[in-house]
Amino acid sequence: MANVAAKERKILVAVDEGEESMHALSWCLKNVISQNYKDTLVLLYVKPPRAVYTAIDGTGGYLFSSDILAAMDKYSNDVAECVVEKATKMCKDIHDVKVERRIDHGDPRDVICEMTQNLGADVLVMGSHGYGPIKRAFLGSVSNHCVQNVKCPVLIVKKPKSTATNN
Amino acid sequence: MANVAAKERKILVAVDEGEESMHALSWCLKNVISQNYKDTLVLLYVKPPRAVYTAIDGTGGYLFSSDILAAMDKYSNDVAECVVEKATKMCKDIHDVKVERRIDHGDPRDVICEMTQNLGADVLVMGSHGYGPIKRAFLGSVSNHCVQNVKCPVLIVKKPKSTATNN
Repeated sequence: MANVAAKERKILVAVDEGEESMHALSWCLKNVISQNYKDTLVLLYVKPPRAVYTAIDGTGGYLFSSDILAAMDKYSNDVAECVVEKATKMCKDIHDVKVERRIDHGDPRDVICEMTQNLGADVLVMGSHGYGPIKRAFLGSVSNHCVQNVKCPVLIVKKPKSTATNN
Repeated sequence: MANVAAKERKILVAVDEGEESMHALSWCLKNVISQNYKDTLVLLYVKPPRAVYTAIDGTGGYLFSSDILAAMDKYSNDVAECVVEKATKMCKDIHDVKVERRIDHGDPRDVICEMTQNLGADVLVMGSHGYGPIKRAFLGSVSNHCVQNVKCPVLIVKKPKSTATNN
């Protein structure tokens, strides 16, 4: 009487404040999520390390008072919540899929690779840029690093130019 | 009375003589091909340019007679047919999916990117290595190049170590 249980898959999607990662999530929902599987979508947002801000400051952070750093941390937390909430809503709109939310902090290259490994993800989905030009200058290409270091399949989704709002 | 037509997708899979690309194809068949779409799978094998052999020769090819070059070309064609035939059989075994076979020659980096663009592929699937260590030394990383230059989503599938026969 029992049906053959559908295979479970864990799909890790790295999201950030850029439109490209939301496009990657959308593409994944349409093209990878399948009724043939029990899919769990793990939405991962990685808060950049405080070093990114202090590097932009250019002095190792000495110019910033603790108040300003606390305000930056709060801002960073708010952005994280907002991005993950937006991503969660996209999942609810399109598919009835189990969604887990993860917010972590650190170098996104390391955090994404470690999380992919620790969760035993079946596939990692991400945009090609991941971070804006300023953060990327400090952090390097996140997607390149993940393709090199992650053991499971990696799906890199670029934002099509036709729907881009800028370059 | 008419059903809503399923969206057609064109999925380009770059195959070569390595086990990794066959694993990438297998993963794609299980995880990307979907009954919700009308999927056409384009199997692309790129014969390396003759320059690869002559570069291995190390003298620009002067050591090789035309007979040897003709034999190499025949070998190259045989390998191409064999790989594409093996890949086609995998598709028949697993899914009832429309399969197109393409054999081209040139620098695989350029050929794969151009074919992806010209076909208007919805996604490009490939292994992470693509070519063995000798060819890679001459051709560079094919997958890295494609991730950088292809506009559609790129799925990079690595061969799991547990089923690897060597390092």
